[in-house]
Amino acid sequence: MPLLSPPEPHSLNDLAELLGAEVIGDGDFTVTAVAHPVFAQHRETLALAMDKGSHALLDRTHAGAAIVAHGTEFDSERFAGGLAIEGRSRVALSLLSRLFSPPLHHVPGLHPSAVVDPSAKVRDGASVGPLCVIGPEARVGPGAVLLSQVTVAAGAEVGAGSILHPGVRIGEKCSLGERCILHHNVSIGADGFGFVTAEEGSIERALRTGEVTAFNFDILRIDSLGNAIVGDNVEIGAGSCVDRGTLGPTRIGDGTKIDNLVQIGHNATVGENVLIAGNSGVAGSAKIGDRAVIGGMAGIADHKTVGDDAIVAAKAGVARNIEPKGIYAGFPARPIKQQRSLEMDQMRIGRALRRLRDLTERVDRLEQGAGGGSEEPEGGE
Amino acid sequence: MPLLSPPEPHSLNDLAELLGAEVIGDGDFTVTAVAHPVFAQHRETLALAMDKGSHALLDRTHAGAAIVAHGTEFDSERFAGGLAIEGRSRVALSLLSRLFSPPLHHVPGLHPSAVVDPSAKVRDGASVGPLCVIGPEARVGPGAVLLSQVTVAAGAEVGAGSILHPGVRIGEKCSLGERCILHHNVSIGADGFGFVTAEEGSIERALRTGEVTAFNFDILRIDSLGNAIVGDNVEIGAGSCVDRGTLGPTRIGDGTKIDNLVQIGHNATVGENVLIAGNSGVAGSAKIGDRAVIGGMAGIADHKTVGDDAIVAAKAGVARNIEPKGIYAGFPARPIKQQRSLEMDQMRIGRALRRLRDLTERVDRLEQGAGGGSEEPEGGE
Amino acid sequence: MPLLSPPEPHSLNDLAELLGAEVIGDGDFTVTAVAHPVFAQHRETLALAMDKGSHALLDRTHAGAAIVAHGTEFDSERFAGGLAIEGRSRVALSLLSRLFSPPLHHVPGLHPSAVVDPSAKVRDGASVGPLCVIGPEARVGPGAVLLSQVTVAAGAEVGAGSILHPGVRIGEKCSLGERCILHHNVSIGADGFGFVTAEEGSIERALRTGEVTAFNFDILRIDSLGNAIVGDNVEIGAGSCVDRGTLGPTRIGDGTKIDNLVQIGHNATVGENVLIAGNSGVAGSAKIGDRAVIGGMAGIADHKTVGDDAIVAAKAGVARNIEPKGIYAGFPARPIKQQRSLEMDQMRIGRALRRLRDLTERVDRLEQGAGGGSEEPEGGE
Repeated sequence: MPLLSPPEPHSLNDLAELLGAEVIGDGDFTVTAVAHPVFAQHRETLALAMDKGSHALLDRTHAGAAIVAHGTEFDSERFAGGLAIEGRSRVALSLLSRLFSPPLHHVPGLHPSAVVDPSAKVRDGASVGPLCVIGPEARVGPGAVLLSQVTVAAGAEVGAGSILHPGVRIGEKCSLGERCILHHNVSIGADGFGFVTAEEGSIERALRTGEVTAFNFDILRIDSLGNAIVGDNVEIGAGSCVDRGTLGPTRIGDGTKIDNLVQIGHNATVGENVLIAGNSGVAGSAKIGDRAVIGGMAGIADHKTVGDDAIVAAKAGVARNIEPKGIYAGFPARPIKQQRSLEMDQMRIGRALRRLRDLTERVDRLEQGAGGGSEEPEGGE
Repeated sequence: MPLLSPPEPHSLNDLAELLGAEVIGDGDFTVTAVAHPVFAQHRETLALAMDKGSHALLDRTHAGAAIVAHGTEFDSERFAGGLAIEGRSRVALSLLSRLFSPPLHHVPGLHPSAVVDPSAKVRDGASVGPLCVIGPEARVGPGAVLLSQVTVAAGAEVGAGSILHPGVRIGEKCSLGERCILHHNVSIGADGFGFVTAEEGSIERALRTGEVTAFNFDILRIDSLGNAIVGDNVEIGAGSCVDRGTLGPTRIGDGTKIDNLVQIGHNATVGENVLIAGNSGVAGSAKIGDRAVIGGMAGIADHKTVGDDAIVAAKAGVARNIEPKGIYAGFPARPIKQQRSLEMDQMRIGRALRRLRDLTERVDRLEQGAGGGSEEPEGGE
Repeated sequence: MPLLSPPEPHSLNDLAELLGAEVIGDGDFTVTAVAHPVFAQHRETLALAMDKGSHALLDRTHAGAAIVAHGTEFDSERFAGGLAIEGRSRVALSLLSRLFSPPLHHVPGLHPSAVVDPSAKVRDGASVGPLCVIGPEARVGPGAVLLSQVTVAAGAEVGAGSILHPGVRIGEKCSLGERCILHHNVSIGADGFGFVTAEEGSIERALRTGEVTAFNFDILRIDSLGNAIVGDNVEIGAGSCVDRGTLGPTRIGDGTKIDNLVQIGHNATVGENVLIAGNSGVAGSAKIGDRAVIGGMAGIADHKTVGDDAIVAAKAGVARNIEPKGIYAGFPARPIKQQRSLEMDQMRIGRALRRLRDLTERVDRLEQGAGGGSEEPEGGE
């Protein structure tokens, strides 16, 4: 038995039913893979050609079948069969990619090299891979897969069916829901970045007076007594971090998807079905509403609220609360129409300055003509 | 014995002494935890209600005691006792959080699964957790805690009492002071990002001529012969990186606190008691003065200096040196008053453009009235 | 035998030949290290003093030899010998740093604590360090060094002579070329951030209508069937991530160098000899041309192209395609000359607003003088 077994074969008829698609040609033709036309490696492949770019490459494919948008050309000579879909091609892509995605390699049960505390509860059907560490009183749900070199610290919990990729760290007493996917080196439950100075510190003084006249000679740490609670069906990208709260939890709601290298600060609350793109940061105690979308490299300042269904554009810096369904961009972030108008205004400054100069000269001449004097020559301004 | 033992009980009288607070009600009442009012899990808890928001939630708490700001309402019926403080509530929070913070679970000594080179020196009272790797001639100080899956490479040093969370990597010959805290997956001592082209490269040429007419066909590596030296009482957040220097060390001064996902480039010098918020970057050879504060997602360009006690706002991009106590914001970063004034000016552009158009029409009319001609019609501009 | 052996000695004569430099004094004098003047630890060191700053520190060095720029002063009393070079000092630095860089500590062969699948192929001369995990059917080329706690997942490949620092994760079926260097905790081949909603989602609707009137209640995952392919001589900094592609590979071309905490999204194509500085992000399906240079904290939006030899300044946000050799800065990124001109224009707004006000008053007076009336008082605007 090959260790990395190929996915199961599926007939075009079966796929048509899954997708609500129309079969072209031989509906009994079976495929074991889907691929972009140029990456198809064998004939038992369904080439994905639902958009113009990939459709144009169908004459170069090794695939024996293709899926195209309803109404586009289909070369019945080249292909044994095909599928034509109407509607959202990325939904078809989602269904096909999940059907043909090979399972990750892992071995059920506890790998002998894993270090599992006797008081930890690893449920039947869970997989704890090589060199994982499971701390005392930690719990790993049924069907959860800890691939390798994962840490689940004391008292932490991993829900049923969740997948933790190598290097994931779950801090003490933090919890992860069911069917989550955490990618390489994700950190859940590092301590929050909370400090205070014994006397008024430089930032406090500067906010109050506009000047730095207090100095942070002594910095006191605020320990993080809370934890981080991640809901069900959450996906968190490689290297991203969710800090624990100070007194209560930092929360990530069900269904939320976070990209790589994203920082979620202590006490933050991220709602359900939120999408956060890469390199972004949500500072401490910020609240992100349900279904909000945060673009890449965006920052949300501490204690600020982003309303339900709001959209924050890439690279925006949110320094004020955003109402539900608001669409914001820029830094400081503004309603996107205002921001785009401001960007257009900026492009007009150069010309306006030239017009202002011309107009000043015309007024100079008018004044000279009107009053005869030359009391305000241009060079004097 | 429970593996995760609760913190010790403390009487309100004792806490009052620690905090300089006034006791209300029964000073002998003891608590074993502090919590935000709504997260209190049992009666032996001190609810923290020093600010308005949490004070308003006191009627919902399960806590048997509460700490409030001096002069605010206290419900003596509900609570066995309480504390009233004057002054900085976050200082009280710091003291209480540290007192009630449960110790991290770890077992003293060398875990049998750790791979410790025979020439490494691990001092008495240090804890080297499961699956750590300690290289040849590395040193781990007394009381240091390496939680699990930590790397201390050949010749590296970890100071007394420092805590290294899972996945921390200390590169060869780097050193870490005493009582430091390094969170999940911190990297100390990766090689610097230093390259040069054999002939003038594209950037050099562009800086000189404004155009790309040289091409980086051949890129030579500059090896990093220096190390990274981290002082005492430094805290570094999850995923953050401090690269090693080229010929000398990259330095992080005593007492400095760095948040998550922060990059400190090779040869940089970060002073003492500096605060650097998440997602920020300090490029190679930059110098950050003592007690400087760097906001989130800010960038400091290579070779630039940020003076002692200076403040760099979130998302700023520092392209020039900043004087001591300077407060800078924006990109390129400017003194914050100038930046705020510039942002306000930007908001006025649209209206100014309309006024300029109106004024032009008025001058048109004046010229026509004055001279009768129409030699410069508006459309001609 | 010391475990951390010092580099070999080299005579000044030999170094002169390597560098094309001129010998000063005793060419037979040998050195075992190079260092910045102030960091030289013993006499058998060559102090690097090719630039003004370090040259000025030569009187403080313990080094017995120094290398200086041709034509600058050399203290023959103090030093046994020296070298004088013409031309690019950083090229000399590259050659010297590589010659004197001590080899990383590692032991050839498979460390007994490593978990290596029997079906994996580890070639002769490779080093698989402590607590590494090598999955089924993975391949590790001759001379490759996996330092410790590295993951090479099922079916993945590491090319000959590549160095993988502790915590590096290579995902299933991904491949890494020859002579690559991957620093602490690099992630290759995490899944791409690809999702779609069953019906039109909030972003799609907002792009079409300018308003959020569709809501992401249901988010479907697009699985990543592709892999990540990294070329030869690539270097990737600590914590950086290269996601796998959806249907085909994400590609990093030969000779490309990526700094710390950089995110490369799924399906992206990064060309050869590209330089990408720290904290940057290349979003999904973006294409970066050969020899392009991306500054720190810059972002390239999804599906955008950066042409060959183009330069993107630090903190830029690229929202449109950039032509080859283009030099872009700002957000949204513009040709750098346009951006700098726009920044200068912005600084002039305040003064222009004042001039506009003055001019309005002058026109008011002219109108009053010409027509006598006062039909448009200033306050009315």
